[in-house]
Amino acid sequence: MECMIRMASGWFYLSCLLLGSLGSMCILFTIYWMQYWRGGFAWNGSIYMFNWHPVLMVAGMVVFYGGASLVYRLPQSWVGPKLPWKLLHAALHLMAFILTVVGLVAVFTFHNHGKIANLYSLHSWLGITAVFLFACQWCLGFAVFLLPWASMWLRSLLKPIHVFFGAAILSLSIASVISGINEKLFFSLKNTTRPYNSLPSEAVFANSTGMLVVAFGLLVLYILLASSWKRPEPGILTDKQPLLHDGE
Amino acid sequence: MECMIRMASGWFYLSCLLLGSLGSMCILFTIYWMQYWRGGFAWNGSIYMFNWHPVLMVAGMVVFYGGASLVYRLPQSWVGPKLPWKLLHAALHLMAFILTVVGLVAVFTFHNHGKIANLYSLHSWLGITAVFLFACQWCLGFAVFLLPWASMWLRSLLKPIHVFFGAAILSLSIASVISGINEKLFFSLKNTTRPYNSLPSEAVFANSTGMLVVAFGLLVLYILLASSWKRPEPGILTDKQPLLHDGE
Repeated sequence: MECMIRMASGWFYLSCLLLGSLGSMCILFTIYWMQYWRGGFAWNGSIYMFNWHPVLMVAGMVVFYGGASLVYRLPQSWVGPKLPWKLLHAALHLMAFILTVVGLVAVFTFHNHGKIANLYSLHSWLGITAVFLFACQWCLGFAVFLLPWASMWLRSLLKPIHVFFGAAILSLSIASVISGINEKLFFSLKNTTRPYNSLPSEAVFANSTGMLVVAFGLLVLYILLASSWKRPEPGILTDKQPLLHDGE
Repeated sequence: MECMIRMASGWFYLSCLLLGSLGSMCILFTIYWMQYWRGGFAWNGSIYMFNWHPVLMVAGMVVFYGGASLVYRLPQSWVGPKLPWKLLHAALHLMAFILTVVGLVAVFTFHNHGKIANLYSLHSWLGITAVFLFACQWCLGFAVFLLPWASMWLRSLLKPIHVFFGAAILSLSIASVISGINEKLFFSLKNTTRPYNSLPSEAVFANSTGMLVVAFGLLVLYILLASSWKRPEPGILTDKQPLLHDGE
């Protein structure tokens, strides 16, 4: 076990460093975009209230969500009782969910204040689906993996589904963020002297932010799926575990 | 081995049936959208030439690509020599790539004909990245896994990376398709009596097509990652294999 932890932890921490840098850049770039080009932030139903939406969705549904997903990949979580790590996993995801809900409140309030329709674009359909699945995933995870009533059989049946949906929700979030940034740039840069198709500096910056979000998401999925960074299950002698087991 | 194949193949074929239905619907819905609401198809540099772009990208980068990825999950591929299945995997992906390239020719020709800028939106940045990675993935896969020069060591080192990038490229394609459908609807439904935000029937239909593409993509990723549907490697006694091995 000691040897496994040492072997895996070097690359793991390097990946975490890269992940932390990418995640911070995703949030800071989105804040900078909204602050420098879109007039900053407010909480009054105006377009400046909308500006919280991209920041909080990138922070909640991508960066915090991604980080929270990787708790069991920390080598420290491999030994000792699992409960504290489960609590940390649930608590970080709850923080991610709270950021997400505040991000939704920002856009719904802005829409309602300006008599703009809600939930008509494909971006919004996909985004609300991702948030709905996230809520279901958190509640089911809490009920099955944290509360004590569920049998080991039920837990081992649902665990691979929980892991798969965790990764799937992150993929949906990334697709939502990309379509959201794209849509926002078409809205903001029409009827200007330098429209989106002339690639003004705002467009280059926001496009790059979108590409950073994609890079962050792919790195999370890579760390999540790399078997050598998974917590070994009791009774498994090798460090190789399948992502999904039989029968799910 | 016989028992494993029987156990896995029931659910597998049911999933394939669902996958085939979803994939066909993705392509047919995109064709119907372009034919019924956007005036159909032509190959003359007009907007009707553009209409080939969504159809061919959904067909190439999502449906054919997704189907081609799952060749090794067919229980028939588990026994006997691997070479015919490798050839099928490469050939189907080549078909997917050709459809993709024709889809790109359609949009670039339309843009150049109408003096519209190329590659400015985040949709196009992400889409062209996905196509570039697809080309690299195909060439590297051909050189390492089909040509005879590569050692077993190199193949087993690169295989998990090949599988991971295969799934990653599909995720990028889905994000590109979603942002593309979203963008197309904002373009097409502005300055009309029933704009996008009033959710006319075209918007509901195209949004639903986007959601179908997402469902298809998630099902492909599920089948790809479910370990009980993986081709057992020689020397592995159980049917449980990791998605990614150590050391990659």
